[in-house]
Amino acid sequence: MFEAKLGNAALLKKIIEAIKDLVTDAPFDCSENAMCLQAMDSSHVALVSLKLEVGLFETYRCDRTINLGMSLANMAKALKCANNDDTCLIRYEENDADSITFAFEDTKRGKTQEVTVKMMDIDNEHLGIPEQDYAAVVVMPSTEFQKTCRDLAMFSDSLTITVTKAGIVFNGKGDTGSSVVNYPPTKNVDDDDNEAVVVTVNEPVNVNFSIKYMNHFTKATGLSPRVYLFCFH
Amino acid sequence: MFEAKLGNAALLKKIIEAIKDLVTDAPFDCSENAMCLQAMDSSHVALVSLKLEVGLFETYRCDRTINLGMSLANMAKALKCANNDDTCLIRYEENDADSITFAFEDTKRGKTQEVTVKMMDIDNEHLGIPEQDYAAVVVMPSTEFQKTCRDLAMFSDSLTITVTKAGIVFNGKGDTGSSVVNYPPTKNVDDDDNEAVVVTVNEPVNVNFSIKYMNHFTKATGLSPRVYLFCFH
Amino acid sequence: MFEAKLGNAALLKKIIEAIKDLVTDAPFDCSENAMCLQAMDSSHVALVSLKLEVGLFETYRCDRTINLGMSLANMAKALKCANNDDTCLIRYEENDADSITFAFEDTKRGKTQEVTVKMMDIDNEHLGIPEQDYAAVVVMPSTEFQKTCRDLAMFSDSLTITVTKAGIVFNGKGDTGSSVVNYPPTKNVDDDDNEAVVVTVNEPVNVNFSIKYMNHFTKATGLSPRVYLFCFH
Repeated sequence: MFEAKLGNAALLKKIIEAIKDLVTDAPFDCSENAMCLQAMDSSHVALVSLKLEVGLFETYRCDRTINLGMSLANMAKALKCANNDDTCLIRYEENDADSITFAFEDTKRGKTQEVTVKMMDIDNEHLGIPEQDYAAVVVMPSTEFQKTCRDLAMFSDSLTITVTKAGIVFNGKGDTGSSVVNYPPTKNVDDDDNEAVVVTVNEPVNVNFSIKYMNHFTKATGLSPRVYLFCFH
Repeated sequence: MFEAKLGNAALLKKIIEAIKDLVTDAPFDCSENAMCLQAMDSSHVALVSLKLEVGLFETYRCDRTINLGMSLANMAKALKCANNDDTCLIRYEENDADSITFAFEDTKRGKTQEVTVKMMDIDNEHLGIPEQDYAAVVVMPSTEFQKTCRDLAMFSDSLTITVTKAGIVFNGKGDTGSSVVNYPPTKNVDDDDNEAVVVTVNEPVNVNFSIKYMNHFTKATGLSPRVYLFCFH
Repeated sequence: MFEAKLGNAALLKKIIEAIKDLVTDAPFDCSENAMCLQAMDSSHVALVSLKLEVGLFETYRCDRTINLGMSLANMAKALKCANNDDTCLIRYEENDADSITFAFEDTKRGKTQEVTVKMMDIDNEHLGIPEQDYAAVVVMPSTEFQKTCRDLAMFSDSLTITVTKAGIVFNGKGDTGSSVVNYPPTKNVDDDDNEAVVVTVNEPVNVNFSIKYMNHFTKATGLSPRVYLFCFH
């Protein structure tokens, strides 16, 4: 049996909305320590790695390690039924092996709502993400990163990210126009300043990406006020 | 001559918006006591019955009983022109027999707006709705009923309503998922508590409906904070 | 070289949004006194005449009179990148002759964003607008004019405007319905009363227009709380 209760359904709703267009079907690895998900998009370009640790849940019980395969579209439908303040209990029972239940409770009203979704058979290719040394790390407001990716997509399909001690520069070039966005590092940063741009550079970086994927990633903007960009060469 | 004035055009606007997708053309029966409408949808599954009594109007004059056939789509267009605070005068004159006028007045600005809509020839099949004894009656917040119907439509085309002394349960089942929503009766209800769920059961009820129609009905949610569900066997 | 800086990008954004569906490509005449635009729509029915005088800009430098041909769709894309409080520098340099740069600066954050857009070769047919005596002039709230045009478009493709000392009347007639909207002149008008309807009549006017064009014009509603209607016979 697996049973885990979130105090607030909104968190899981936002997570699934953020990844469901990138990954359609996903295996959730449930162990006694965490509920994890690793999946690549269909073109094997992007990797989603999600870890919901025990501490996030109000109650958590996982009798044995199991893998729950879910259609994220169906999971998103189920979670849309939750009001944001509802609690959300995720429940899987071995004797009802082909489905998983999301139970929402509006404790004030005493209303309960159970949505049961068919599970899927998904090959679970667990991908090791090697510890790596990054050439540069940038922390910036997630809404700024989202806006910049959206702006650059107006004229271009790809974007170049350049990180130096002088800051981070986003560059996009198309046939009818081009854009350059420049964020200098913020001076005198407080630890809890979500508006700050913080740049750590071991080696300067100049890398090029498809904006399509960046715009997929920025669907997670609502999950956190900050985004970390870990840059390789 | 028929002439009736509503202090506030928003009411009629909401009513017509609520029914115009279910019933396309409708005959309004105007008598000295009320403006009434009875009409079935094109598949003869659902019946709309509307009664606007004299007391609702600021002024009301109906020289003789008449039947005004209206395209609800055109009537909705006319009412969209009204600002919510405008007064709304409905006027029909025998010597201009094929049209009806909606006159809106913004009394502060002195602005007047008259929209005249062609009438339609509609067979008026007046349907007697027999007085009946219901097996159960449920009063609940209309927004909750609306949300439940919308939620169940995610996985299912039909819904089952079960009413017992323990409350009302909505149930929908589809190929990829299913939902159960359970409202226990509210304890210690105040008369003016629009949030309460009140269940009156003569006999337990278990009935099945097409969700499509329920979602038509819930377009009237904005008209009242409460909905009454009168249930037969 | 041409370089002009607006304290607030929102103004130019609103202007271009207002005209870009009417005029697709437009030549901006830049001189030492002003940045001007004159262009007709593709059917040569409507004329857009825009003048941004030096005083509107924080800084303004125009070494010689030049004509900058722009795709308004691309210009709108560039301006969408600006936050409303950003400053907006428009820059054209002879040695980079085929493009124009919009530089936005968020002075608080130190963030800069430069969007460069390809210019276009556009024949500049400068149209003299003769000084004329108008039969009537009406000043009214631009939102009221917008709503009236939208309302009349429900049943009609054209609208008739009648101006007399009794006020301004808009009239539209179609097969299934018709509308009449009547604004009497406001009494005791303050100069700064944007809600007033002020009518100046040399001769009564009765003119007919395509509503399609009126609805194009009302896209400029956000630019000013008042609209002036100058009416000929």
